[in-house]
Amino acid sequence: MTASLEVVRLEPTPEQYRFSFGGGEPLLTVRPGTVVELTTEDCYGGEVRSVDDLPSQVCRFPYLNPVTGPIAVEGAEPGDTLAVHLVDIAPARDWAVSSTFPHFGALTTTHSTAMLHDALEELVWLYEIDRERGTCLFRPRRGGPEVELPLDPMHGTIGVAPASGEVFASITPGAHGGNMDTPEVRAGTTVYFGVNVPGGQLSLGDGHCRQGEGEVCGTAVESAMHTVVVVDLVKGGGPAWPRLETDEFLASTGSVRPLEDAFRVSQHDLVTWAAELTGWDRLDALQLVSQAGLAPVGNVVDTNYTMVAKLAKRYLPGAVAADGVHERLRATADAYLTQR
Amino acid sequence: MTASLEVVRLEPTPEQYRFSFGGGEPLLTVRPGTVVELTTEDCYGGEVRSVDDLPSQVCRFPYLNPVTGPIAVEGAEPGDTLAVHLVDIAPARDWAVSSTFPHFGALTTTHSTAMLHDALEELVWLYEIDRERGTCLFRPRRGGPEVELPLDPMHGTIGVAPASGEVFASITPGAHGGNMDTPEVRAGTTVYFGVNVPGGQLSLGDGHCRQGEGEVCGTAVESAMHTVVVVDLVKGGGPAWPRLETDEFLASTGSVRPLEDAFRVSQHDLVTWAAELTGWDRLDALQLVSQAGLAPVGNVVDTNYTMVAKLAKRYLPGAVAADGVHERLRATADAYLTQR
Amino acid sequence: MTASLEVVRLEPTPEQYRFSFGGGEPLLTVRPGTVVELTTEDCYGGEVRSVDDLPSQVCRFPYLNPVTGPIAVEGAEPGDTLAVHLVDIAPARDWAVSSTFPHFGALTTTHSTAMLHDALEELVWLYEIDRERGTCLFRPRRGGPEVELPLDPMHGTIGVAPASGEVFASITPGAHGGNMDTPEVRAGTTVYFGVNVPGGQLSLGDGHCRQGEGEVCGTAVESAMHTVVVVDLVKGGGPAWPRLETDEFLASTGSVRPLEDAFRVSQHDLVTWAAELTGWDRLDALQLVSQAGLAPVGNVVDTNYTMVAKLAKRYLPGAVAADGVHERLRATADAYLTQR
Amino acid sequence: MTASLEVVRLEPTPEQYRFSFGGGEPLLTVRPGTVVELTTEDCYGGEVRSVDDLPSQVCRFPYLNPVTGPIAVEGAEPGDTLAVHLVDIAPARDWAVSSTFPHFGALTTTHSTAMLHDALEELVWLYEIDRERGTCLFRPRRGGPEVELPLDPMHGTIGVAPASGEVFASITPGAHGGNMDTPEVRAGTTVYFGVNVPGGQLSLGDGHCRQGEGEVCGTAVESAMHTVVVVDLVKGGGPAWPRLETDEFLASTGSVRPLEDAFRVSQHDLVTWAAELTGWDRLDALQLVSQAGLAPVGNVVDTNYTMVAKLAKRYLPGAVAADGVHERLRATADAYLTQR
Repeated sequence: MTASLEVVRLEPTPEQYRFSFGGGEPLLTVRPGTVVELTTEDCYGGEVRSVDDLPSQVCRFPYLNPVTGPIAVEGAEPGDTLAVHLVDIAPARDWAVSSTFPHFGALTTTHSTAMLHDALEELVWLYEIDRERGTCLFRPRRGGPEVELPLDPMHGTIGVAPASGEVFASITPGAHGGNMDTPEVRAGTTVYFGVNVPGGQLSLGDGHCRQGEGEVCGTAVESAMHTVVVVDLVKGGGPAWPRLETDEFLASTGSVRPLEDAFRVSQHDLVTWAAELTGWDRLDALQLVSQAGLAPVGNVVDTNYTMVAKLAKRYLPGAVAADGVHERLRATADAYLTQR
Repeated sequence: MTASLEVVRLEPTPEQYRFSFGGGEPLLTVRPGTVVELTTEDCYGGEVRSVDDLPSQVCRFPYLNPVTGPIAVEGAEPGDTLAVHLVDIAPARDWAVSSTFPHFGALTTTHSTAMLHDALEELVWLYEIDRERGTCLFRPRRGGPEVELPLDPMHGTIGVAPASGEVFASITPGAHGGNMDTPEVRAGTTVYFGVNVPGGQLSLGDGHCRQGEGEVCGTAVESAMHTVVVVDLVKGGGPAWPRLETDEFLASTGSVRPLEDAFRVSQHDLVTWAAELTGWDRLDALQLVSQAGLAPVGNVVDTNYTMVAKLAKRYLPGAVAADGVHERLRATADAYLTQR
Repeated sequence: MTASLEVVRLEPTPEQYRFSFGGGEPLLTVRPGTVVELTTEDCYGGEVRSVDDLPSQVCRFPYLNPVTGPIAVEGAEPGDTLAVHLVDIAPARDWAVSSTFPHFGALTTTHSTAMLHDALEELVWLYEIDRERGTCLFRPRRGGPEVELPLDPMHGTIGVAPASGEVFASITPGAHGGNMDTPEVRAGTTVYFGVNVPGGQLSLGDGHCRQGEGEVCGTAVESAMHTVVVVDLVKGGGPAWPRLETDEFLASTGSVRPLEDAFRVSQHDLVTWAAELTGWDRLDALQLVSQAGLAPVGNVVDTNYTMVAKLAKRYLPGAVAADGVHERLRATADAYLTQR
Repeated sequence: MTASLEVVRLEPTPEQYRFSFGGGEPLLTVRPGTVVELTTEDCYGGEVRSVDDLPSQVCRFPYLNPVTGPIAVEGAEPGDTLAVHLVDIAPARDWAVSSTFPHFGALTTTHSTAMLHDALEELVWLYEIDRERGTCLFRPRRGGPEVELPLDPMHGTIGVAPASGEVFASITPGAHGGNMDTPEVRAGTTVYFGVNVPGGQLSLGDGHCRQGEGEVCGTAVESAMHTVVVVDLVKGGGPAWPRLETDEFLASTGSVRPLEDAFRVSQHDLVTWAAELTGWDRLDALQLVSQAGLAPVGNVVDTNYTMVAKLAKRYLPGAVAADGVHERLRATADAYLTQR
């Protein structure tokens, strides 16, 4: 396999970043199985570099949350499954940034949960990133102890072109993926998308050095990233909502409002998927998921809220998801990492 | 400490079980620091013993979800903190039971999310419990692989008398605790309640051999339990919503609808609590929780939905919650377990 | 009928007001068909009498929202229908009051929709009530035009004892009625409740000189009232949620969260009821309601949100609800008003 | 004015219908003040013509809910206000159609409120339209009385191109308008949209002979329409969400989930608007709206839910909205109708 490893690079120029899913020409077209080494900019477009750079002043609306792509995959047709394995996600700088943002977040009046309060104060935090030690350093703005947190890099935004010709801002999560903001999208994870348009049109961005579940203030430890993915294709079987697979877990996602509906979508998909993979009746699958499933929150701040429904593969005897593509992509990743 | 260990037993007769929080006379009154060995019946009142015992037929409404208690704590007054440390939770039988239930669960029409569908089929699952090996065995009703799951015993229902003279059915979670159905209430956890009435009036029940996050079908692996708790009192400082502490974590809960409001309540409490414990400004605490917090779902099936907001204590330098009572109760628990 | 008209008065002393539904002894017991002339205090317990009386300072928690009752109806048993016809609702004073209230209302952070904002400012408005002209006068606190609004008196709170021994604060609406805060509960309306306990135990209060749909700031034009009701009993047929009937309309209510579930509950009940009354299939009733139904909002501020589903009786050919008791109570009301 | 009345016609060919808001070239460009006589097809694309034409079989996905347009208005720039006055909405045929639809509606499992039930039965109703008598006839499919309902024609879908280059399916309501499905969009109403792109790009369709509040089954009495609008422009002042004005009322809309957030958005906008128009402080405007506002439900079935917040203009002394354009458009409409 090593011999045949196809590796391409994708480093967008500032003008090449996109701010939506759907529409536009692909920035890159690859064959299934290709390793793509790419760079992503942070959700502020790199414009917030100190605690004095207030996002509402230095960012140009609506040019927020740039994504790298789209990457078209040869042969991908509507109904197919696009499999994206995250091989490596490495912070590109020795600093990262987070902030509150007027009318954005779970504990503030927003444009949707509209209230008569003035906006919460806009405040920026700068984190020191120590890639050697694998840490990012939280410095409170107004005194009190500093805290060192472990790096756990992930991409908040990853998705494909939506169905029906729709074009969504990159900050919106949905059935096409997008800004799901779940910490589960880390190195070692394979993400499955249903293909809606020829080529599938994968884009990703919004790297986080780490993120709490729910992303309650509205932003994570935001960073430009050097990321490596393997992009592959499984004919047919495209899921209605993005699914995830790791060596340990299968997971389904749901990105809608209210949050209980995101929970329902993700659990319904996981129950249905578990039934298909094991031969269980759906009520039996419901029972097993009820006792053994996990339900980590993705985000409760974006235009849709994201829930993940997660089940250990050891509780799904004999199950092989998506023709076993995760195993193959793991092997590709290992080959790539060995020869790099 | 061993010398002074006060241990009492509480084994309700069938007539002594209660079905609500609030009202009624205490079944037991203890001094702060007392170890209570108690028994609880399962949520079906023990009436479902085979897959042919349909809950809607064998259970007598509204006599569902019996709780053991209330236990009054001497000296507890409104505004105080009732601290309950779970020392041990042991399944009382070698079987446990779960079921669907007409109009109950997250993926079915209910009395609140009312739809024109007929109810989902009512089905019962019987689990074999192997306490030696620490497992419960899932047997699908309609074929396919069996799965052995690890025991992880917990109480779905634990709470105190509500404020303002309200009386809530034991199936309702809220600011008083109650049927939160979070797997976090396991041995090793201390639960903090705000005291609303003299004595606090602690009750608990609804033991689960294990439960997935969300309890999506509406019930867990339900079992009668032999449970040991230490009950203690901290004067003042009663939290607005139940809080949890383990050796590793602090956690806040919220039990309301919709689910995003349960998320908001729990995160708001955790942010506020973290600020108090560290001296951080609330926006700094919001930032830290946003990057390091976890948000495990409790239930998305009961009359209120429950979210937990959880933060590792190692990210709260110098924080001591509730006058350090968790440490003291851990010591009591160790002393008890040593001499048992 | 006039000859047999039974009229009793109920004027609670300050100590006799209740603050919950459920529990306690009846204040009055009447035979079915009795006219009750009663007085109610306003939701502030009459403590807010000028714009300088801030509710958070002059009201004693949790003694808010006093109700008059309970009134037991002889012969009422669980499963029966309690029918309450509102004959007259007259403001008791020549002033009424409204206010914002910290952490209460639809456009402010609350204890459930918890945010990090400071509370909105607490402000009181005093309305002049002109019973002759049928108006209440809005005086803005900070300048700008005054507005004269028509009186449209109603009761925000009306209900019976809940099922299962539960006791709810009088500010909570639910299946038992309670603080539904819908303008539909005005003179001329008959309200139907399912009886949960012997006697039914009717209470009412929270008079409003008028109220907008949703009660968005959290309070209406609050006033003590002189109110006349006729209380009657229909054996059996107790509805799951309060229903309303006027000369023109039938209506169902739902009081839960989120608001779409309150909508679902009320629409589901109306569809089911319409099918029963006409002989239509439920899908046919769904179709008719979809095209001819109204959905006025009750409240979006209380511990549960209330929606009303309303259908003109002229679109329900031949339908007779609750054995025609509304017609009979209208006749009783006419007889009473004539002889008064 | 009659002399200068500019009237153009717009009758799309079948190929010219669009299925989204945003993107694409205008079908027509007009000067401000132009009267446009146009035709719209029904939401089924005219494919459902008998009770045997099941939508899921005869409609081609995603080609649902065709809209007529976009109509570009000369001089309209981002930030401006596009004013659309509905002069006349006339059913184009002597029949109209409604249906249930698998996984669509408020009382059924949907793709968002995902449950394990089978879909509700798909059923079609055909209405006879009598334009002379102004009625549509409901015929139950499974027996029981027929009901004659008054015609009250409206457009479920009306909107402009969204901001930020987004493209939304025509079934989605939002800040751009779209599929709000509120009965308030009838002849005599002026709708105000914030302009997001040059020309504004107005489209409309989804005519309803009438619709209940909430559109609970998912569809109204659907009909192709002959519709007349006047399209005008007010420089600046573009509202964040669509607003409505009639001779009697001002109204704001909100289209998000959950339904309480749609309520919040619409009420927040109405309160803010009322304060601007009268000079009241926002808390005074909140108070007035709380006592005098109406909150009719639009839809609780589409991808976003729609609420309307409505206030009688007689309670807003001296208020003139959008430079008084409604009055001018009323005059234009009268002139047009007189000379037609």
